[in-house]
Amino acid sequence: MNIKVIGNYVGRFGELWEQSLTDLIKEGVAGVLADAQIKPESVDAIFVANKASGSFNQQRHLGALVSEQFGHFPPAMRIEGACASGGLAILAAQQALLSGTYKTVLVLGVEKMTDVSSSETAAILATAASREKEYGSTFPALYAMLANYHMNRYGTTREQLSSVVVKNHLHAFDNSKAQFHKKFTVEEVSNSVLVSSPLRLLDCSPISDGVAAVILSSKASSRKTSILGFGHGQDTLALADRQDLGSLIATQKAAKQAFNRSSLSQKDIQAAEVHDCFSIAEILAAEDLGFFAKGQAATAIASGQATYGGQLVINPSGGLKACGHPVGATGVKQIAFLSSLIEAGKFDVALAHNVGGSGATAVVNILGKS
Amino acid sequence: MNIKVIGNYVGRFGELWEQSLTDLIKEGVAGVLADAQIKPESVDAIFVANKASGSFNQQRHLGALVSEQFGHFPPAMRIEGACASGGLAILAAQQALLSGTYKTVLVLGVEKMTDVSSSETAAILATAASREKEYGSTFPALYAMLANYHMNRYGTTREQLSSVVVKNHLHAFDNSKAQFHKKFTVEEVSNSVLVSSPLRLLDCSPISDGVAAVILSSKASSRKTSILGFGHGQDTLALADRQDLGSLIATQKAAKQAFNRSSLSQKDIQAAEVHDCFSIAEILAAEDLGFFAKGQAATAIASGQATYGGQLVINPSGGLKACGHPVGATGVKQIAFLSSLIEAGKFDVALAHNVGGSGATAVVNILGKS
Repeated sequence: MNIKVIGNYVGRFGELWEQSLTDLIKEGVAGVLADAQIKPESVDAIFVANKASGSFNQQRHLGALVSEQFGHFPPAMRIEGACASGGLAILAAQQALLSGTYKTVLVLGVEKMTDVSSSETAAILATAASREKEYGSTFPALYAMLANYHMNRYGTTREQLSSVVVKNHLHAFDNSKAQFHKKFTVEEVSNSVLVSSPLRLLDCSPISDGVAAVILSSKASSRKTSILGFGHGQDTLALADRQDLGSLIATQKAAKQAFNRSSLSQKDIQAAEVHDCFSIAEILAAEDLGFFAKGQAATAIASGQATYGGQLVINPSGGLKACGHPVGATGVKQIAFLSSLIEAGKFDVALAHNVGGSGATAVVNILGKS
Repeated sequence: MNIKVIGNYVGRFGELWEQSLTDLIKEGVAGVLADAQIKPESVDAIFVANKASGSFNQQRHLGALVSEQFGHFPPAMRIEGACASGGLAILAAQQALLSGTYKTVLVLGVEKMTDVSSSETAAILATAASREKEYGSTFPALYAMLANYHMNRYGTTREQLSSVVVKNHLHAFDNSKAQFHKKFTVEEVSNSVLVSSPLRLLDCSPISDGVAAVILSSKASSRKTSILGFGHGQDTLALADRQDLGSLIATQKAAKQAFNRSSLSQKDIQAAEVHDCFSIAEILAAEDLGFFAKGQAATAIASGQATYGGQLVINPSGGLKACGHPVGATGVKQIAFLSSLIEAGKFDVALAHNVGGSGATAVVNILGKS
């Protein structure tokens, strides 16, 4: 069965004080229906990706909230897997299509994070780590451990971490939906405020509001983007339980499955949206997805191999780092953004990589021109 | 494709002070694997139903938490749709099997609600209603409106509401996993403390901790229970937006789909677990599922038509009311409990009905001996 992305929409990411959670949902639904040019009644079912609207917005049951935007109330459910919620919702939607139960489904990812204070946000985000084993930890602290390990084992440098950030802000500069439109130098990143050593403020993805949506269909369509393969890996919730901090095994598993299902290999991938919640996360992803050998991604990215003119373009949107990271929206945005690039003829084959927690969940989807 | 329930487990429901969220998960995994008599490695994927562990237990990302109980870390995701989370997870699992992606999947529903105060619990539960339109409402107040409407329109009486409760406590008396083992008279229910008129304390399902799990498989099995049909309906999130408070349209839609898919009709159903979060909810369910004509279920239940010797047995477990209502576990418990009755030869065809919010989401599954 050929699953096509017949509609995509990415809203503006940022601190959207003027929009409520429901406003973002309405924007996403209207935007993706307009792009798909289908009647609302054509949507058979809905999959909503969201991490924590119960805590951010005192509103759960988002499936029902999205469904009621349609006159015919399509069946809807919400999928959560921390920051991988979007990727997981894309997977659940694919299963529903492959099962033959539905022909056309909406996947909408949304998060409205700025309604609470930054410290509350940090506490809410930390609920994706293992409470029993990492109580009190924040994600910058957990990823700082991964960064320290990588620097010690592979010689990754402070400047190489910064080069990831410089690249992604450069990419975001041309993305009108990105939260940030500001270029930085390696020095500016390396000298920004220390958050959790070695990670500095500009190594960290921001707190964001935003919505993204795609419509997937098993029907024939003149649209150009198909999902060629998917993968879904898991690992321990706690870093404390990992054998090795040098890799995210869940990413490796998800990538292997997606490449196998698509019969493609890393050299076929022209662009990739990877889960750069922190600068070190993009380096780990670039290695664990197999684009660069272990220990060599930092050098490759710093030397221009992950931007236009290099081996492949990593995070053409600017990534979580510069486009923004409204957590439930992120995995859906990756698919929506890459689809728009494929539709525009900029790339033929692209990969999306979405991570939950500090690598406990990973989802990979491969998209291609069909 | 024939989907079988090859394992079922229901833990003890109640105020389980001595067990953590993780303890409940471990109990559910061990219990259902023991019942299924399969190796853990046979589980290809996991679907977790939970409403609000992020707020109750400061732990999200439960897919990863369940997956790490297995040495091979099966792919996992959490499904949420308020109190219908369990039913929705059963649906997502079926899609994954029907798609051919997986052959054997675990569905685990869990909720640990007693770690916070009752007032916090009420606030957390209320996040399943429409925050924008029903701000400050609690579920007893919303269902009290439904009860008042039903009493005014159909002449349903206080004593008939109580008869639902008396029946369900009678059924729970023989269910070792039930939260309550106490029989009540109609007078005791009718004279219990007023919560939200006309609903009294004994009309309301309790706050519960608990876990339930099933293993579904598309492989051949000697186990006796198959899922014969499923349905999934939606309606407005807010009661304020409904045209009619006399029915839950989502239930009607879900039932119609499930009966159509199974080629069965209401007269084939010998037992049903229905979503009796409040006494009035069972009356609405019995009508909207089509077991009794609109306006006649209260009389039928009061006259013994919904217990052993009657037309069918509604809530043989004791229902949410007397067995307990750990919200994420409830929809999974319905399938697990009915499967155990079918396996034991007590019934041949049974129906499970799970509702989210005040009827915004409804899921129906029909199980049968195969």
